[in-house]
Amino acid sequence: MKTLSDYAGFVEASLEMAMTDNDIPELLSRAMRYSLLSGGKRLRSSMLLAAVEMMDGDVREAVPYACAVEMIHAYSLIHDDLPGMDDDVLRRGKPTNHVVFGVGQAILAGDGLLSEAFEHMLAAALKSDSPSKHIRAMAEIARGAGARGMVAGQCVDLSCEDKRYGGRDELEYIQENKTACMFIYPLRAACRLCGREGWELEALTDYARAFGHMFQTADDLLDVEGDPALLGKSVGKDEASGKLTAVSVYGVELARDYVGQYLDAGLEAIKPFGERGRFFSVLIKDMVGRDK
Amino acid sequence: MKTLSDYAGFVEASLEMAMTDNDIPELLSRAMRYSLLSGGKRLRSSMLLAAVEMMDGDVREAVPYACAVEMIHAYSLIHDDLPGMDDDVLRRGKPTNHVVFGVGQAILAGDGLLSEAFEHMLAAALKSDSPSKHIRAMAEIARGAGARGMVAGQCVDLSCEDKRYGGRDELEYIQENKTACMFIYPLRAACRLCGREGWELEALTDYARAFGHMFQTADDLLDVEGDPALLGKSVGKDEASGKLTAVSVYGVELARDYVGQYLDAGLEAIKPFGERGRFFSVLIKDMVGRDK
Repeated sequence: MKTLSDYAGFVEASLEMAMTDNDIPELLSRAMRYSLLSGGKRLRSSMLLAAVEMMDGDVREAVPYACAVEMIHAYSLIHDDLPGMDDDVLRRGKPTNHVVFGVGQAILAGDGLLSEAFEHMLAAALKSDSPSKHIRAMAEIARGAGARGMVAGQCVDLSCEDKRYGGRDELEYIQENKTACMFIYPLRAACRLCGREGWELEALTDYARAFGHMFQTADDLLDVEGDPALLGKSVGKDEASGKLTAVSVYGVELARDYVGQYLDAGLEAIKPFGERGRFFSVLIKDMVGRDK
Repeated sequence: MKTLSDYAGFVEASLEMAMTDNDIPELLSRAMRYSLLSGGKRLRSSMLLAAVEMMDGDVREAVPYACAVEMIHAYSLIHDDLPGMDDDVLRRGKPTNHVVFGVGQAILAGDGLLSEAFEHMLAAALKSDSPSKHIRAMAEIARGAGARGMVAGQCVDLSCEDKRYGGRDELEYIQENKTACMFIYPLRAACRLCGREGWELEALTDYARAFGHMFQTADDLLDVEGDPALLGKSVGKDEASGKLTAVSVYGVELARDYVGQYLDAGLEAIKPFGERGRFFSVLIKDMVGRDK
């Protein structure tokens, strides 16, 4: 069975290729590459490729989608780090994009990556014999990234700052949109690319939703509990900023319970795939360091 | 014959409809609507619709593309006005998006509009019987808006600040990418939607390129010559900022010559359409106040 790092390595190489042959101005290209190729777990793109492989789809055809998902993730981090948003100067131990390239160029690098994501998917669609499949897949990615998905979550997240108490509904909304959407819709896109739009679409949607909420809750816990090695975050940042987090809303104990519940829900959702779903059951347990 | 204001009125109503039925968070929706529905000439979208009508295409099917073009234009203006970019506090006599909603929400309103543009085109593609046509049309829009088009132009424009002397190549590059691309690629998309990919594609590409360069040169001239009524710009801003403009590179006299040359090139390019191309020949002359 392939592991996360097998897929991640493949994504890394594909992104490197995707960003070499181009007519992008040198400065813009450098700013885009700086954030896109700066490591990261390649979680969302790897899950998309693993899902396509699990459903006997054409992995080669899915590669531009995997790249697009990483481009969208990178753009969202660049814009998230800007002054006026989270105003962060470090990400994964490196200066953030605007610290290196200036605010203006960082805004453009993000805009460029979002556009590039669609250009990549469209280039794949142009080459395909089944254009409808691609349109359905692209529509899923757009839905997850857009103003009813990730951008919606960021908007509410930003407008909820300094409201540390209460806000259970807001927290759910932020987790669902800002975090879970970019797991849900890439996996739904994988289903569309494979023409698997029945129980597989439902099962992977449920899995990805549980995965996303668990991921965000565990991330919030790490911010106060330490062990940043696991999810690679700096400790205490969100807590200090007064943002809504699972810990600020539920407290540590209840947040831990939720992690367990989301894990169970994710494992339950992937069951219909049987042994073929092993990548996904292993992955969700690995995320929170549970035994296999 | 329909005029610009006929098409513009139709676009306005379509945008209003496009932005009502949605699950976008209220604050994000408000920020997106503020810039999208704040007037403007609806030039790019009207030209797209007029081209589809001229080529006997399905105007109804093209409406989401017209909306998408305006969404992309609005997003580019929001991000352009941000601190770190042009840092403008007024646009069309109203406070800019970030002045009203804050920098963070303005960044997200721009991101939301760009995503929404693709969602609209994809929704049209999902409903169509000829998906390939839509993929080719969307690829044109993405190309024009992206890191080899409009965003490329903005990057070079921003990095050329304070280099007022020389820079003919840079000026050409900025005019072509920042300005002309969002005329060229919407008209190319119109050709794709109509399945007119031969001489029509070439003729409209040439027309739009001439139109875009003329538009930007005339705009630069207005900044120093006054008569802001014509193109609706504030006077002297770019000159004061030290950006490359047609006037700073060529001087007023030569810039005026270029306007005439671009006008002639545009009129020449539209000729193959004969009487059917009248909207476009009238439009380009109207832009610079020439007799018909």
